[in-house]
Amino acid sequence: MTVAAGRVSRVTVTPVAFRDPPLLNVVGVHQPYVLRAIVQVHTDEGLVGLGETYADRAHLGRLEAVAAALPGADVFDLNALRRVVVETLGASTGGAGASFGGMLEVSSAVDTVVAPFEVALLDLQGRALGRPVSDLLGGAVRGRVPYSAYLFYKWAGHPGHDDDTWGEGRTPEQMVAQARRMVSEYGFTAIKLKGGVHPPEHEIETVEALAAAFPGHALRLDPNGAWTVETAIGVADRLAGVLEYLEDPTPGIDGMAALSRHTGLPLATNMCVIAFEHLKPAVAADAVQVVLSDHHLWGGLRRSALLGGICETFGLGLSMHSNSHLGVSLAAMTHLAATTPNLTYACDTHYPWKTEEVVKPGVLEFREGGVAVPTGPGLGVELDEDALAALHEQYVRCGQRGREDTAYMRTVVPAFTPNTARW
Amino acid sequence: MTVAAGRVSRVTVTPVAFRDPPLLNVVGVHQPYVLRAIVQVHTDEGLVGLGETYADRAHLGRLEAVAAALPGADVFDLNALRRVVVETLGASTGGAGASFGGMLEVSSAVDTVVAPFEVALLDLQGRALGRPVSDLLGGAVRGRVPYSAYLFYKWAGHPGHDDDTWGEGRTPEQMVAQARRMVSEYGFTAIKLKGGVHPPEHEIETVEALAAAFPGHALRLDPNGAWTVETAIGVADRLAGVLEYLEDPTPGIDGMAALSRHTGLPLATNMCVIAFEHLKPAVAADAVQVVLSDHHLWGGLRRSALLGGICETFGLGLSMHSNSHLGVSLAAMTHLAATTPNLTYACDTHYPWKTEEVVKPGVLEFREGGVAVPTGPGLGVELDEDALAALHEQYVRCGQRGREDTAYMRTVVPAFTPNTARW
Ligand SMILES: [Mg+2]
Ligand SMILES: [Mg+2]
Repeated sequence: MTVAAGRVSRVTVTPVAFRDPPLLNVVGVHQPYVLRAIVQVHTDEGLVGLGETYADRAHLGRLEAVAAALPGADVFDLNALRRVVVETLGASTGGAGASFGGMLEVSSAVDTVVAPFEVALLDLQGRALGRPVSDLLGGAVRGRVPYSAYLFYKWAGHPGHDDDTWGEGRTPEQMVAQARRMVSEYGFTAIKLKGGVHPPEHEIETVEALAAAFPGHALRLDPNGAWTVETAIGVADRLAGVLEYLEDPTPGIDGMAALSRHTGLPLATNMCVIAFEHLKPAVAADAVQVVLSDHHLWGGLRRSALLGGICETFGLGLSMHSNSHLGVSLAAMTHLAATTPNLTYACDTHYPWKTEEVVKPGVLEFREGGVAVPTGPGLGVELDEDALAALHEQYVRCGQRGREDTAYMRTVVPAFTPNTARW
Repeated sequence: MTVAAGRVSRVTVTPVAFRDPPLLNVVGVHQPYVLRAIVQVHTDEGLVGLGETYADRAHLGRLEAVAAALPGADVFDLNALRRVVVETLGASTGGAGASFGGMLEVSSAVDTVVAPFEVALLDLQGRALGRPVSDLLGGAVRGRVPYSAYLFYKWAGHPGHDDDTWGEGRTPEQMVAQARRMVSEYGFTAIKLKGGVHPPEHEIETVEALAAAFPGHALRLDPNGAWTVETAIGVADRLAGVLEYLEDPTPGIDGMAALSRHTGLPLATNMCVIAFEHLKPAVAADAVQVVLSDHHLWGGLRRSALLGGICETFGLGLSMHSNSHLGVSLAAMTHLAATTPNLTYACDTHYPWKTEEVVKPGVLEFREGGVAVPTGPGLGVELDEDALAALHEQYVRCGQRGREDTAYMRTVVPAFTPNTARW
């Protein structure tokens, strides 16, 4: 009737690189490869739990230090994991923003380092129990998690390479075509446009074209803080009846609060509220109406459930942010979203932009814009060891060791500076 | 390696009554018996999970309705439990305050009804896993949970009965003697005085006598809102260097906030913040510095962990409230407190006032003022079926069907009215 007490015997952290199109954003453009780290936590019972996270050099160093310190830990003792991370990192928890291409900064790396190990331990708990992770999080309240189409302005291809299958994304017509392909292939009913790339008028026209082409779809625009408060007020006025929410139109809690006083359009963020320490000031300022959760950033699935509870308690909406990711993360995101009753917005995902994978196919299929919650033990996904080896080999060969959207952009546009509060 | 998926097959709710001394409070006096309900959730795997809660008539009716609706539920699906409760109660969730002798009111009974079933399901999960509930809550961060001595002004005995072994508790000297017995028998290092019974000057003198007799002990005073803001300011000035915190000196968030602006003495509450809906206004008003959690009131152990995370996020201290309770609750309180890193205050408990029990002895022993976290599967306690039957029989015989401190007081002091904001 009972299961043995598993303890961590060995942890591996494998950096991988997978191809990524040249997607444009406020700080530059996506490099040819996305770096991710796959965490495998082995137990003395012969089980393996999976986690996935960023893999820039600074983060990778921290992951490896924790991997070395974790053996002996009880797979149920998430509080002990946190202590191990805190003790291992010591005072050197700064610079965690390196994982985000210069777009975000967090004051401590503890939560980002805890996250992949916490997911792996929950995966192990589920495997030991024969239960999906969703059961460990209180039970799925929805069998399928809706995701959104995540549109990007983009170059036709990386410099020096052929065009990718998506081609250029610049004009409103091209962006409608991009959306059409995503909607027809995945069934999305929510559409998010990554902005902060073109002057606001151009991005407004893109949104209006999307609204005309996809009546009834929920639309979002996210310029990653590219606008001043004044500009943001103007855009909010224009798009008030068109958007479901406006995401990070202007930087900072103060700026968002100033905008919030001028518009009834819900404001969302994954930039000015990205750690627990930001919640109290954001609530006090009434700065945002929707917080985008992200278990990679907020310390894992249980801490993200806490964020969900806080949002419910303080009357904030809850959505979910995504960086480029692989299937281990998609599984974790799906279990989390399925068990968070108030996560009622379709979640972001970069999944459609990805052409390579490390998990075995068959579990994470998009239908009608959503992913069914995996029902197998733990996360419900299995690593394809050959694919993992190949993407690790690609990591070794590709030479990228960090996320450097701005530096990569400058290889093409030498004078480029990030568009933060540019317009 | 895996455990079978247990489902609820049968639920019993057994009201019990155990003897209680005539402890005085702001609304009257404790009746000769405390009513509690013991919830037993059986699964198709032959396991039984335990929960404990209030047993006034209204609450008992709701528990029984949920007990009838729960069979078939998955023991891991806590979200489904909540749905069952919401659906079972329908629109009739009012009047939950009946469980608190008129001292508290909550707008919805959902959380109080969910709580004992949630504890029982976690007990079942732990039993199926061979793991203590503390492991399901993220792992114990302390092996022993400190509790506080809970002093009450009291009559020497119930009217018409012999004096109890504690005798009268009225004068400062008598209260010091009461404290001395509790400290010597249990090793408590924190002492809480239940006030709201005598004029403030008398209660201040009692606290000062305790401070003189127990130097180095953490002291608290809880008059349950017996004072006006003006009176509370005066008491706070007198006791600022003496108390660890002052609990509910005056009623309501507004009153507490007004007092908070005048004193540096931390203000605690289990009266004006007793549900998630109270947190936002309390934080906005900076009304309190310490929230007393209580899993019976806040919807179970997972929701109480959420409260803990909210307190940490919003810079509030966390302590734990107690009503009169038996060992099932003490076990649950201990698992919760052990796994809540920021629950750094000694928890309240009425345990020393109790002379009857339903769990088998040996697990919940007080040493040095604390209880070691049970290490057996689930809650780690077992019901003594004979004791349960005897206390149920006592329930049937005693005739009490609700908590009516005021009505009982009026059998002795006919003109008594609650002391709320009296002084
Ligand atoms: Mg964003
Ligand atoms: Mg109190």
